[in-house]
Amino acid sequence: MQNLKFDSNGLIPAIVQDSKTKEVLMMAWMNADSLQKTQETGETWFWSRSRQEFWHKGGTSGNVQKVVALRYDCDGDTLLVLVEPAGPACHTGEVSCFYRMLEK
Amino acid sequence: MQNLKFDSNGLIPAIVQDSKTKEVLMMAWMNADSLQKTQETGETWFWSRSRQEFWHKGGTSGNVQKVVALRYDCDGDTLLVLVEPAGPACHTGEVSCFYRMLEK
Repeated sequence: MQNLKFDSNGLIPAIVQDSKTKEVLMMAWMNADSLQKTQETGETWFWSRSRQEFWHKGGTSGNVQKVVALRYDCDGDTLLVLVEPAGPACHTGEVSCFYRMLEK
Repeated sequence: MQNLKFDSNGLIPAIVQDSKTKEVLMMAWMNADSLQKTQETGETWFWSRSRQEFWHKGGTSGNVQKVVALRYDCDGDTLLVLVEPAGPACHTGEVSCFYRMLEK
C-alpha cells in the first residue's frame, strides 16, 4: 500500500471491472481504511464522499463484489479492482453504471 | 455535456478502455474543454493536473487513442472512453497502466 498515492482528502479512485466479462461496472473512491477492509474481507468497500462513511458495496442490496485481483497504475494514484459481482453494480438495476452514451 | 458533473477544479475522471480487448488502459482527467477537443477530434485529450495544460494522448509518442464511444455513469461524475489505441497507453511501454498487482 506504500506504493499508492492518496489525494489531499486521503482518497484514491477505484475502477471496478467484471473479471469475466471485462465490463467496467463503476468507479468509486477508497481511503486507506476501506482498501484495507476490501483486502481483509475480499469484497469491495468504498468511502462515500457524500455520506462521509464506509460503504460496503452490496451490504444492503446483496449485490456484493467478490475481489479477484487488485491492480494499481503506473502513477500509483488509481486502483483497478477486478471482481465477480453477485448482481448489478448500478442502483438503477443496470449491470454497469456506464449505461448511457454521451451525445456530441 | 449538461448531464455531467465536473468537480470543484472543473475536472472529471475519464477511464480509458480498449474497445476490442476491453482492457482498462488508463485513467486521466478531462475538463470541459478537453472533453470538447476529444469529441471534435475523435482522439483523447486530457487535462494534465501536474502541468496545468492540455494533453493530447499520443501527440508526442504517436500512440493516439481513437475514440469509439463516450459513456458516462449514473451520477454523471465519471466518463468511460472506449478507444482503439495506436500503441501502448503507458509511458513505460506497457499496454495498460494497470500492470501491477497490489499485494496484501
